[in-house]
Amino acid sequence: MNLLLIDPSELSAPDRVWLTDRRAVHIREIHQAQVGDRLRAGMLNGLIGEAEVLNLDASGVELALDFSQPRQSPSPLPVILVLALPRPKMLRRVLQAVASLGVKEIWLIHSYRVDKSYWSSPLLDAAVIHEQLLLGLEQAGDTQLPVVHQRKRFKPFVEDELPGLAAGRQAWVAHPYHAQPCPAPSDESALVAIGPEGGFIPYEVDKLNQAGLKSLSLGSRILRVETAVPVLLTRLFPVS
Amino acid sequence: MNLLLIDPSELSAPDRVWLTDRRAVHIREIHQAQVGDRLRAGMLNGLIGEAEVLNLDASGVELALDFSQPRQSPSPLPVILVLALPRPKMLRRVLQAVASLGVKEIWLIHSYRVDKSYWSSPLLDAAVIHEQLLLGLEQAGDTQLPVVHQRKRFKPFVEDELPGLAAGRQAWVAHPYHAQPCPAPSDESALVAIGPEGGFIPYEVDKLNQAGLKSLSLGSRILRVETAVPVLLTRLFPVS
Repeated sequence: MNLLLIDPSELSAPDRVWLTDRRAVHIREIHQAQVGDRLRAGMLNGLIGEAEVLNLDASGVELALDFSQPRQSPSPLPVILVLALPRPKMLRRVLQAVASLGVKEIWLIHSYRVDKSYWSSPLLDAAVIHEQLLLGLEQAGDTQLPVVHQRKRFKPFVEDELPGLAAGRQAWVAHPYHAQPCPAPSDESALVAIGPEGGFIPYEVDKLNQAGLKSLSLGSRILRVETAVPVLLTRLFPVS
Repeated sequence: MNLLLIDPSELSAPDRVWLTDRRAVHIREIHQAQVGDRLRAGMLNGLIGEAEVLNLDASGVELALDFSQPRQSPSPLPVILVLALPRPKMLRRVLQAVASLGVKEIWLIHSYRVDKSYWSSPLLDAAVIHEQLLLGLEQAGDTQLPVVHQRKRFKPFVEDELPGLAAGRQAWVAHPYHAQPCPAPSDESALVAIGPEGGFIPYEVDKLNQAGLKSLSLGSRILRVETAVPVLLTRLFPVS
């Protein structure tokens, strides 16, 4: 936890918060904070400042927030990420990684090689997804919460919604065949789609191409989605 | 498993192998292979060819290997990766990811912020490390086994071994302060060191700098090692 994230709804006064959840445990046990210590803290979807420990005991931690020298979050990546739903255990890690990398818009979609049972996983509950995103933001020192959409049907998404999302930006599907060379990193807005284990099937690649996505090769190695995502985002965007 | 990897010691005849372990289960249950099916197969540290299913039942799978149209593994990354030992659960994933990305030389080292108990983990046993590396190779379709070294003492490694490893190549430590700008991707040989959660301490960064490693920033976000590794390797090396 490189940044303590506070939701505005948690404030008991404009500059006071009382935490009792995993953050309190982390402050006590990992940071081993003492009364008077100052921690990096951010308001969810807001600025970054500091929090001073006023009280701490086994029941929780009381903090005084100080935004007198506010800082901005790191720049977001100007990308829309479309991901074939990974298996649930991997989804957690992927959401954390994606949030830590600065992605702010994620579409989880169905695909032929996505096991239908994945869509019933409790890990797709909004509260669980929210928690993974927070973990990624806390890791990266970012306050801006990504938005995650879920689309359980491939065809309506790709026909009705994807062309609008892809319009006006570079749009790519990671796919090794008939691929364009990878462009140089750029700050311009982009959309990227990454398939499931085993990849999108040819019908799906056709539909994605028709929606305006060009095929992009990540090289001769087949990577797991949790590795492919950072590789792809690093190829497309410069260091920031 | 995008490539079935066979160790030469497993052959019962020059072109025959009988598998009974997780690979047999995978061929039966995930590939749902039938007698006569052909799978992509590679010899560990050798070429890539095909394997034909001769027999399969609950006890195992018999394969006939065919290297009449042999192919090479994807190119290795010309990198020496020095990693502060991650916590054991993450180590497994990191080794798989690193192997899938084509790293062939890995040094796991101690650092002030590495919990000493990590060095007693059964996940550091050679057999367990070997298995994670195989999983990464199977994922990426690579046959060339990486070599993993373990160094439980930071100072002797950095003073006595690291300067020799760094000599004659670009050598970097991922560290946000006093950092050089990231170079353009290049095929030249490099060494990169990545710290533990919380980073290398200033004393360690000084020692790494003295050993010839320049500081390199990955940007304003603090990434977990499993995300930082693919980002860093993608920054340093071109698509291949």
